[in-house]
Amino acid sequence: MERFADIIVKKKEGLALEEEEIRAMIQDYATGKIPDYQMSAMLMAICFQGMTDRELTAMTMAMRDSGDVVDLSRIPGIKVDKHSTGGVGDKATLIVGPMVAACGVPVAKMSGRGLGFTGGTRDKLESIPGFRMELSGGEFFQAIQKNGISIIGQTGNLVPADKLLYALRDVTGTVDSIPLIAASVMSKKLAAGSDKILLDVTTGSGAFIKELSGSRELARRMVAIGNGAGRETAAMITSMEEPLGLAVGNCLEVKEAIETLQGGGPEDVKVVCTALAGMMLSLGKDISYEEGKEQAQKALESGAAYDRFHAMVETQGGDTACIENPERLAIAEISGELRAEEDGYITTMDAEKIGMAAGLLGAGRETKDSEIDAGAGILMKKKLGEPVRAGESIAVLYTSEPERLDGALSHMKTCYTVGRRKPEPLKLVVDIIR
Amino acid sequence: MERFADIIVKKKEGLALEEEEIRAMIQDYATGKIPDYQMSAMLMAICFQGMTDRELTAMTMAMRDSGDVVDLSRIPGIKVDKHSTGGVGDKATLIVGPMVAACGVPVAKMSGRGLGFTGGTRDKLESIPGFRMELSGGEFFQAIQKNGISIIGQTGNLVPADKLLYALRDVTGTVDSIPLIAASVMSKKLAAGSDKILLDVTTGSGAFIKELSGSRELARRMVAIGNGAGRETAAMITSMEEPLGLAVGNCLEVKEAIETLQGGGPEDVKVVCTALAGMMLSLGKDISYEEGKEQAQKALESGAAYDRFHAMVETQGGDTACIENPERLAIAEISGELRAEEDGYITTMDAEKIGMAAGLLGAGRETKDSEIDAGAGILMKKKLGEPVRAGESIAVLYTSEPERLDGALSHMKTCYTVGRRKPEPLKLVVDIIR
Repeated sequence: MERFADIIVKKKEGLALEEEEIRAMIQDYATGKIPDYQMSAMLMAICFQGMTDRELTAMTMAMRDSGDVVDLSRIPGIKVDKHSTGGVGDKATLIVGPMVAACGVPVAKMSGRGLGFTGGTRDKLESIPGFRMELSGGEFFQAIQKNGISIIGQTGNLVPADKLLYALRDVTGTVDSIPLIAASVMSKKLAAGSDKILLDVTTGSGAFIKELSGSRELARRMVAIGNGAGRETAAMITSMEEPLGLAVGNCLEVKEAIETLQGGGPEDVKVVCTALAGMMLSLGKDISYEEGKEQAQKALESGAAYDRFHAMVETQGGDTACIENPERLAIAEISGELRAEEDGYITTMDAEKIGMAAGLLGAGRETKDSEIDAGAGILMKKKLGEPVRAGESIAVLYTSEPERLDGALSHMKTCYTVGRRKPEPLKLVVDIIR
Repeated sequence: MERFADIIVKKKEGLALEEEEIRAMIQDYATGKIPDYQMSAMLMAICFQGMTDRELTAMTMAMRDSGDVVDLSRIPGIKVDKHSTGGVGDKATLIVGPMVAACGVPVAKMSGRGLGFTGGTRDKLESIPGFRMELSGGEFFQAIQKNGISIIGQTGNLVPADKLLYALRDVTGTVDSIPLIAASVMSKKLAAGSDKILLDVTTGSGAFIKELSGSRELARRMVAIGNGAGRETAAMITSMEEPLGLAVGNCLEVKEAIETLQGGGPEDVKVVCTALAGMMLSLGKDISYEEGKEQAQKALESGAAYDRFHAMVETQGGDTACIENPERLAIAEISGELRAEEDGYITTMDAEKIGMAAGLLGAGRETKDSEIDAGAGILMKKKLGEPVRAGESIAVLYTSEPERLDGALSHMKTCYTVGRRKPEPLKLVVDIIR
């Protein structure tokens, strides 16, 4: 047998590895036959030499096969999954899921907890009193049959190889490699069992990859993997230059999602969610993107999407009174206001820093086992490009722990700039790759 | 404290590390605070991004300081060490040491066992019956006082960080990095306690780095480290396109070394040894290289160098009858002849492959604990550029184990080529860097 050190040298010298070599590498690493110190050298070599689409697809499929693969075949119809590469104030799943379900494409989603500044979709849904993420397999399929939609917590042992690789990358300086990020995301999507995949690849200050060229490359690589693995995959590059909408934090975001489903909500949330839902419908129903967007918009405007959301919350044990009257969702009681220091236009609004501020208020999880303060977060009063006057409110900060407020407020002061000239409006949907 | 992962990222991004960061890295790795999986990622990043001379000197000095540093200050005069980056048939130390000692520069050398196709200087000396490599500190200094020269086995715990790093590099595809090779060699040289250092950097088919540009770069980096560490260092780039001399294997090489000291020996051995000794004298006596070479040549021709070698063997318990009559050295009894298949000139003579053939005969050590067959090896009958006739002997192979002969013979057939045109003569001393 070839020594694994020789395979490392092959990659180091810029040669493409054979699919068989890659499959053996992932299997042997997942089963402990390849030690961490060899894999970390390989990961670093990949950071420098990259991987071909063929190599990357082989690696991703081997990662998928390292654990359980969800079987959604009991659900009739084409299941389309959506995944976001991450953003601040990203409540899109809560809105897009019901929109798509209302148009007849089933949504069978598993959602993890968020690690980072603010919670994940699971944390957001769990801020609705009584909402149960832990359904049995039978309950899950019944819920989808009834409502066309169910979002539950992750079950089973999905992609253990990714967990190992991610932990290793985190401590060996090999996190920011586009092929490795693409393999990590796509291995989980392929294991989640949907028929088609829509990737929401964010770009800008709040995105994991901030440069558009990098976001495009990541989108292209992930689409190639998905299609290479036999699952039709599309990517939508969306702006995360500022937070999506006005709300950042779990209860605040659920509230904003419900308001949007009720026909209100911020304009950017509506635009981005309609685009994402439209593309999911395009994939799920084999219709054009334009037609998908039209159907999605109607589902939102008619209240059909709201009804699906309401039904999902009811079926999963959540308090529907909070859905009907979202002001009943418990926002944290201690608040502070961020006020503008000068007149002008909001010229930058750093989404990542705002996410950090939300984390300082308690909206996030510092370690896997920390508790989230569901009511903590930030409600923006101004969006990029809007005029402000000195003394006017830019954002309100909420927390349950008074000692957290001052730090978050002073951090928030570094999150935005005010200038004389009104900036160009953002393009929210930057590109579509399919 | 900075996370080591951040230091890895810094190197990955091509930034130079601070001396303090490098020193901490080596210390923490040697003491187990930095795990192998982080160090291997760093080593791979270094393979791609290299190191500045400043970084490399800091790393080498930190490696040196990970263990004992030999103190030669009890020996009066300027001690000059010589180190070869490796070659086949390289018996230079056995000849150069006595030449230099005969000219008044003390030679206090520690020599390790060889791992590889053929033995190291230690293995060669131990093929002289009775020769003791294990002298006490007192005996070592007395021997030098008496004869001006002593070569002993390595004592103490020199550069443990290099042992750890080398073992890790071997399994992580990070062996062939010029800065890492330079740090490995120079950390050991700096720990060996001499005042000045001459590096014999080989180039060509039998060298660790075969391309002249790489050999030059390695020489330049090592000279920079030595000078940066305050030890005057020079490098001589010598040809290892074919084996040095005619003998490959422990007893055979000692025999050839003695013949050279007695005024015979192959021309290339004389030329290279005179050059190396000349440069050591230039460093040790602050004279010109030309003057050094003249003195060295005189020491060889007058028999003064032979006398030093004889005295060293006597003092260290070796059988001087074998020195006076080198045919008494026990060459292995089973032999086979490699004969030319066509008429022409020897146009290539692959030194590495010949080394491998010697290994197949038993002249080397496959693992740290294997036994060497001191009498095994190869005696070349032809050098590069010499004419041959079909059927004429090119080399005689010696071994103590009959089952080893056929494999080595058929391997030897791939080691040379015969052509119509006489090739250009080799330049033996290719360059001097100081």
